[in-house]
Amino acid sequence: MTRLFNDPAAFADEALEGFTAAHRRWVRSVTGGVVRAAGTPRGQVAVVIGGGSGHYPAFSGLVGRGLAHGAAVGNVFASPSARQIRSVARAAHAGAGVLLMYGNYAGDVLHFGQAAERLAGEGVDVRTFAVTDDISSAGPADTAQRRGIAGDLPVFKAAAAAAEEGLPLDEVLAVAAHANARTRSFGIAFSGCTLPGAGEPLFTVPEGRMAVGLGIHGEPGIGEEAVPTADEAARLLVGTLLKELPDGVSTPEGARAAVVLNGLGSVKYEELFVVYRTVAALLAEAGVEIVDPEVGELVTSFDMAGVSLTLTWLDDRLERLWRAPADTPAHRKGALGADETPTRTGAADDDSDDTPVPAASAASREAAATVLTALRAVADTVDRHAEELGRIDAVAGDGDHGIGMRRGSTAARRAAADALALGAGAGTLLTRAADAWADRAGGTSGALWGTVLRALGTALGDDDAPTAARVAAGVTEASAGVRRLGGAEVGDKTMVDVLVPFADTLAAAVTDGTPLTDAWDRAAHAAETAAAATAGLLPRKGRARPHAEKSLGTPDAGAHSLALITRAVHAVLRNDH
Amino acid sequence: MTRLFNDPAAFADEALEGFTAAHRRWVRSVTGGVVRAAGTPRGQVAVVIGGGSGHYPAFSGLVGRGLAHGAAVGNVFASPSARQIRSVARAAHAGAGVLLMYGNYAGDVLHFGQAAERLAGEGVDVRTFAVTDDISSAGPADTAQRRGIAGDLPVFKAAAAAAEEGLPLDEVLAVAAHANARTRSFGIAFSGCTLPGAGEPLFTVPEGRMAVGLGIHGEPGIGEEAVPTADEAARLLVGTLLKELPDGVSTPEGARAAVVLNGLGSVKYEELFVVYRTVAALLAEAGVEIVDPEVGELVTSFDMAGVSLTLTWLDDRLERLWRAPADTPAHRKGALGADETPTRTGAADDDSDDTPVPAASAASREAAATVLTALRAVADTVDRHAEELGRIDAVAGDGDHGIGMRRGSTAARRAAADALALGAGAGTLLTRAADAWADRAGGTSGALWGTVLRALGTALGDDDAPTAARVAAGVTEASAGVRRLGGAEVGDKTMVDVLVPFADTLAAAVTDGTPLTDAWDRAAHAAETAAAATAGLLPRKGRARPHAEKSLGTPDAGAHSLALITRAVHAVLRNDH
Repeated sequence: MTRLFNDPAAFADEALEGFTAAHRRWVRSVTGGVVRAAGTPRGQVAVVIGGGSGHYPAFSGLVGRGLAHGAAVGNVFASPSARQIRSVARAAHAGAGVLLMYGNYAGDVLHFGQAAERLAGEGVDVRTFAVTDDISSAGPADTAQRRGIAGDLPVFKAAAAAAEEGLPLDEVLAVAAHANARTRSFGIAFSGCTLPGAGEPLFTVPEGRMAVGLGIHGEPGIGEEAVPTADEAARLLVGTLLKELPDGVSTPEGARAAVVLNGLGSVKYEELFVVYRTVAALLAEAGVEIVDPEVGELVTSFDMAGVSLTLTWLDDRLERLWRAPADTPAHRKGALGADETPTRTGAADDDSDDTPVPAASAASREAAATVLTALRAVADTVDRHAEELGRIDAVAGDGDHGIGMRRGSTAARRAAADALALGAGAGTLLTRAADAWADRAGGTSGALWGTVLRALGTALGDDDAPTAARVAAGVTEASAGVRRLGGAEVGDKTMVDVLVPFADTLAAAVTDGTPLTDAWDRAAHAAETAAAATAGLLPRKGRARPHAEKSLGTPDAGAHSLALITRAVHAVLRNDH
Repeated sequence: MTRLFNDPAAFADEALEGFTAAHRRWVRSVTGGVVRAAGTPRGQVAVVIGGGSGHYPAFSGLVGRGLAHGAAVGNVFASPSARQIRSVARAAHAGAGVLLMYGNYAGDVLHFGQAAERLAGEGVDVRTFAVTDDISSAGPADTAQRRGIAGDLPVFKAAAAAAEEGLPLDEVLAVAAHANARTRSFGIAFSGCTLPGAGEPLFTVPEGRMAVGLGIHGEPGIGEEAVPTADEAARLLVGTLLKELPDGVSTPEGARAAVVLNGLGSVKYEELFVVYRTVAALLAEAGVEIVDPEVGELVTSFDMAGVSLTLTWLDDRLERLWRAPADTPAHRKGALGADETPTRTGAADDDSDDTPVPAASAASREAAATVLTALRAVADTVDRHAEELGRIDAVAGDGDHGIGMRRGSTAARRAAADALALGAGAGTLLTRAADAWADRAGGTSGALWGTVLRALGTALGDDDAPTAARVAAGVTEASAGVRRLGGAEVGDKTMVDVLVPFADTLAAAVTDGTPLTDAWDRAAHAAETAAAATAGLLPRKGRARPHAEKSLGTPDAGAHSLALITRAVHAVLRNDH
């Protein structure tokens, strides 16, 4: 379990501060994460990686020459926000574009995608790439749906080494895709992990049992067996990976592979070595030539006891990139010359938002006060239900929905209060609340709620008093935006199952001339009914929540929280009118 | 707990094999451990480190350019044997002498000392140095009694960097002593550790509590408190170390220090970073300039949850040595040129003992058969009592007495059988059994039992039938040798408490003309009485067992096993006569 922390909510930030303080030779701190201390060489493509905290050395420990140029660091097990990613990318950018790289998780896909949109809007040439190496998380026909685990290292390194060679952005992206297509990982776990301050593990594996293919946030695996001997574990890992060779590798005989035997947290080095001894023997027996093996902790999951094996099947180019020198806090290889003189090529570390608010009409400012009241009610409701939301999220997700929603709604309330004090209209107030929510919450829900509030803000604007029709139009646009961003549809048992009937009911009632408060009441009722209906067997999901497939007696956490929030907002509307 | 292993008895060997397979860029395997893959540059002093397994990256992970030239790797929590150390030292030796370095533990002191004697006898210029950085293990007036923990790293590195600079052996030794005198460590732990195959932890810390100053093998600490916050832990670590400044550092204000924040096994990197954040702030507040901090796992104790903080107070020379480049599997720093061409300067990796046995008289060969019978009885007795011995050793020691005695006595029995088959006399048979016992058992008891059997073998020789007088003389010499080697005296509650009255009683009875079997019976009785008397409060010990000071309801494990063995041998004598 995690024992050493102060305020659990500050854990990720404090860990990043301590990490940076200990590694000034390699990295410097910027808003949202770290970049190389020496900066990105001018004209070199910047590879910016990232993901949640709790996986060290992923991701900050992999920043340095020969590897990443920057890392955006999210909260515990939560994607960094688009704002963080944008900030790190701007600091790492040296004029040749940015490749954003991350594991294939819904929250990361959303936030890195949003950051890329913003960066592109600012004139930065940017691409995104999600690593998909975990063969337990989807079948060979669905490789794009797979999660990213310890294969992050060889895929990141291939792309970064290509950038060091001076390749242009699209070629660096092509190298990443090629390396990823030739990288496969498979893992086993003997225990779950306990997050800072949590009273019990996020998930558990029965004593004496082994979970096969368990995800690094506790995502469901593909089976459970008795704990094996080290040799049996090695046979399972190697045997499984040799069964799924990538295109272009017809037989292990004579092939070359980068090998990463990764410890997930509390499996010790000596245990890894005992397993590696047999891994190496079995690969040799199969005719595989091992190139520069890595045995150690590279992508962890707090104190989870488990190991994963990663093979990257090399061709000449990938071998050269894998063997290329690197010098980061956690991964070093080969001989590099002395540090170059720092070339601080990135943009100034400044993305604060204390710009003045745009002028707003008195009517819009008055409406803004009501919106703030509503956001306070939202934050209160979320706060009261945070534990319940976490509990039901833990059934199919990573259990952080309550934490994330609390962080987001609290930040939104604060940003809204600040904006109101500066004289903001309803539109600006909602837009700022949207950014704050997305930035502080992280995770999938943060990105989606940011989208919801931003759509509402855009619909209301700062010029006029909001009408029922505008509110309904904003909600309809929010519903469309969430579907677009999350890739989920009605029936996927996500918040979309609730948002769509809510928006449709509201729009229909408003079109019929029902006053807003009553229309909202009717829509909130539809939301509650729809939320309850998300309980039950979950189908395999699309991109947004690729691998939740469990029989649930509880509703989806995101659906449930949306229903609670619509009801809380209704109470504000009723009192206000 | 340790989950991934095959035969627990093979764990250390298999881990070393896997480690070596994964790190061929840095190390190559030799009997007893590893040396640098590129060898020791000709004319450079070789720094050979070592200790038990279970502490990775100590010790094999610290071999490479800029750090150790070789590491002797013992069994789990047991010193390497003198034979292993000698083998590694010979392989690392490049003509300029060898400095043997290790933490200050009884078993290591014995085995490295014996190895040094043998190496010196073979013409190698050799020195030994024991690191003593753990301030919890003895007071400021007894610094030489302290254990060695994570201070191993800066002290090893200072000496090795001095060797790289081309200093001669005695100056390298002086640098080691100087670095050690300026190095202090202090640790806390939240849990014990579980050895491979063990059903329960070797020791425990109550849930929610913190052991202060607990040793890395579970040696008693100096107190117990509630688990602190990360900031409180940092304050305790820094505050304690700032209270004991070494000679030459009058105030922290303006001083420079190498800082090592070491994780003991299952405290995770992010937790270490959260603690380091405050460690760095507190040291800065005190005016200490931090030089090249290291935050990570450097000297571990399997899956023990705990951290230690080490400060090495630097002067210009120590700062230069600490900052010098290094490239080992687990510790890398700065820029090193490409690998030099390997210069395999060390001796051939061959210390096997299949030389023919010396000629022996028929009478001595006949006596040798009896000795083999006695050694079989010894091994059987030890085997039957191994669990009991482990249990009572765990009260004050590290619980490995049963395992070590079993390994040693079994190896002695086998070596004796081999020697008898080759026609050995009693003297040679005992000498070979002695070497096998010391080599395979490791630990303190291995060295002491090797001494006992060797003394007996020397006294008996291969020429004549053993007389009672010769046996008594051999036992007397064994008693003197054990006292010399272990540094313990009667009253220290070790096996010396039993061996001395046994030897004295036997000698007196033989001198009085009592037949050997009866004399041995009387002596064995004295041994049993003396062993029982070792139960009770243990005083602070001398060099051999520096820090056992606990109220014991059980006899000392070494004393008890000696008494059992004297009785088992008596049964053989009685049947034989």
